Amino acid sequence: MKKIGVLGTGMVGQTIGSRLVALGYEVMMGSRKKDNEKAVKWASENGANASNGTFADAAKFGSIIFLCTKGEATLEILKLAGHENFKNKTVADISNPLDFSKGMPPTLFVCNDNSLGEKVQEAIPGAFVVKTLNIVNCEVMVNANKSGGSPTMFVSGNNADAKKEITGILKQFNWEDVIDLGNISTARGTEMMLPIWLRTFMATGNGYIAFKIIR
Amino acid sequence: MKKIGVLGTGMVGQTIGSRLVALGYEVMMGSRKKDNEKAVKWASENGANASNGTFADAAKFGSIIFLCTKGEATLEILKLAGHENFKNKTVADISNPLDFSKGMPPTLFVCNDNSLGEKVQEAIPGAFVVKTLNIVNCEVMVNANKSGGSPTMFVSGNNADAKKEITGILKQFNWEDVIDLGNISTARGTEMMLPIWLRTFMATGNGYIAFKIIR
Repeated sequence: MKKIGVLGTGMVGQTIGSRLVALGYEVMMGSRKKDNEKAVKWASENGANASNGTFADAAKFGSIIFLCTKGEATLEILKLAGHENFKNKTVADISNPLDFSKGMPPTLFVCNDNSLGEKVQEAIPGAFVVKTLNIVNCEVMVNANKSGGSPTMFVSGNNADAKKEITGILKQFNWEDVIDLGNISTARGTEMMLPIWLRTFMATGNGYIAFKIIR
Repeated sequence: MKKIGVLGTGMVGQTIGSRLVALGYEVMMGSRKKDNEKAVKWASENGANASNGTFADAAKFGSIIFLCTKGEATLEILKLAGHENFKNKTVADISNPLDFSKGMPPTLFVCNDNSLGEKVQEAIPGAFVVKTLNIVNCEVMVNANKSGGSPTMFVSGNNADAKKEITGILKQFNWEDVIDLGNISTARGTEMMLPIWLRTFMATGNGYIAFKIIR
């Protein structure tokens, strides 16, 4: 079974990591320090296919890598993980460029004529970056049905095979309706959905919302 | 029946205007010059309840006003129409801050920490601005079923009665699922959906797409 590196030990990393293990993948969770408490605990609770290490360990380990980092830390963490460790690998970027410094709801620190997805691809040009999953909470990410319906997910990326590989995992996460938007610059579209997600959440109190493209 | 002013003679203004006439409203289409060819033709084709005039004529005429202008012209047209003519009126802003100057797909000339909806409200502080309908093509605007399903529409505005009034018209346009996002600053959310609309349109070739919030 394929090896997957998950960078990030927060709720998103833990939820994605556990679900991937449950699906039979070997998963290494990466963090700044090998003995990160949350990562050690996660690995101990998720069986023999779950392990942990540094960001570089996890990036080396995976043939696929999930970026489950806070948007503001994503580019720094790519550096810590070693840009060379992403070469020729599929990298699912699910982070969002949220800027909480100006209060709630957050703004985006990059948008409109650029995106975090593009910045990630630019930082690791040898990798095949796929932007996806950033438009729902992490429980819905790993199980689309949690939204209460059959919503739409998007993939953006420059490499068709990488998008196909990630779409395969999305199907395992119960995303039946996946739209390939095109190259990585289309991540501008999905990252700019965060403001409507946030405001719909604030208006409805429902954090399990998802988007369906009616067509 | 209520009188409605429609500012703009393009496809959006014509489609909205014709549908409102068909629903029994009296509609005046406003343009820069009273003898605007498209407005004269539209009025002549839409029966006794359809008329045309200047932007100021149409703003004075309506107890509700629909801004069906190109986003880049919206604020100038409010000035031409006379800010005082919007006082205490419900103003549906369905324009989008699209900037085509940098090529396709367009960027937004305001977003993230401000919105065109807020700029409109700021320009006519005595009016009750409601941002809505800007996230679909004009045929879907006036008939949600054209999308092929039952999509979601949003309203943003500072005045509850104005949002209720516009929501009533949305129901007549077959929008059964309307979410009140809150004050006019939530227009940032809906205006920032344009990039994903555009890219989904480009990826699918379907201009009748709409968004459903699964919840």
